[in-house]
Amino acid sequence: MYEIYETKVNVLRDNDEEAAKVRESLQEKKVFLLNLMGSPGAGKTTVLLRMIEALKDKYKIGVMEADVDSAVDAEKIAATGVRVIQLHTGGSCHMDADMTARGMEKMNIDDLDLVVLENVGNLVCPAEFDVGAAKKVMILSVPEGDDKPLKYPLMFTVSDCMLINKIDTKEIFDFDEDRCREYVRKLNPDMEIFPISALHDEGMKEFTDWLDRQICLWRAQ
Amino acid sequence: MYEIYETKVNVLRDNDEEAAKVRESLQEKKVFLLNLMGSPGAGKTTVLLRMIEALKDKYKIGVMEADVDSAVDAEKIAATGVRVIQLHTGGSCHMDADMTARGMEKMNIDDLDLVVLENVGNLVCPAEFDVGAAKKVMILSVPEGDDKPLKYPLMFTVSDCMLINKIDTKEIFDFDEDRCREYVRKLNPDMEIFPISALHDEGMKEFTDWLDRQICLWRAQ
Repeated sequence: MYEIYETKVNVLRDNDEEAAKVRESLQEKKVFLLNLMGSPGAGKTTVLLRMIEALKDKYKIGVMEADVDSAVDAEKIAATGVRVIQLHTGGSCHMDADMTARGMEKMNIDDLDLVVLENVGNLVCPAEFDVGAAKKVMILSVPEGDDKPLKYPLMFTVSDCMLINKIDTKEIFDFDEDRCREYVRKLNPDMEIFPISALHDEGMKEFTDWLDRQICLWRAQ
Repeated sequence: MYEIYETKVNVLRDNDEEAAKVRESLQEKKVFLLNLMGSPGAGKTTVLLRMIEALKDKYKIGVMEADVDSAVDAEKIAATGVRVIQLHTGGSCHMDADMTARGMEKMNIDDLDLVVLENVGNLVCPAEFDVGAAKKVMILSVPEGDDKPLKYPLMFTVSDCMLINKIDTKEIFDFDEDRCREYVRKLNPDMEIFPISALHDEGMKEFTDWLDRQICLWRAQ
């Protein structure tokens, strides 16, 4: 037997105000900010590279790579030719609205259509901090397991879209996609779900078509 | 091209004091506390189940399962018959020394030899918070990628031992073990490294033998 013991609660009011301001300002500029989240190694950068490939002729894209350290991802993104900035969070496990606003100021986003924030690899903290994005996309990779919605419910609750990445390894990791979808539906009935393999370019078109529609809707508002 | 922009720095003094007190008290009681860390889905619970199997006849074991939500892991551990408590962190992305001390008080550890804290799945925050453990063990799973030491250096710097889990999937994920070890060695030349497959019970004996020696040394102090 075991007990359940609650140890801590967070309240994060100021960030929400700041995030609303960021979103309003982006709305005026018609810049669509995407907050891309997921565990370390879920495949955020690979998904981003595919997204850039699919959308770069239609939209002017900028990328903010948030990491605790290194510039591994920014180097990969820079090779595509899109504008990119590496943000080091100084140990912080997530980006907040103020850090995002400062990153965008530094990068100059006024002439961009789509800005993607690749958040720090983490299923917990980034979910708690609204950065002012138009949409939140999260990636769950198959090797992480189908029970993750139970353990990290907030991430699955606040996101608009979930990519189930490395879907080609479903059998190897005994990943039950139906069960995973069921857990997610209970938390978030409106979640858009796309099973993909970013590495093998499977399922990506369905996702980038969805994203394209979201950008259209955002600009039409 | 891209710029590097530092956005935030953390200072965490009080926790270190608290952690030193926890460690001292555990030393007096001859209780070995292990802080087990890793990303969501790295295999912490599966490793823990193997550890219990290997060491339960020799040591009296207790487990603290820290999660943002759910009791999925505690249920699995409870089935082994060892004492277990589920700690819900109320949204927090890590355990700190105070939370750990309160968990141990709640569980009553005085008659135990080995207490394992399964930390929240996260490569960032748990690395920043000393919980007062005798040793820190981290798990990197192969699907996360061999570049993780570059992106989450603190975790690889502060840990005493690293398990490279799901090693049987190295080819599928193009994981370069030598490169990964090289990155880790630069951060932490003393790191003990064990390639394992917890699921298939490969390499676990080398790790549990090491752990057994650490417990002996701790009790002999």
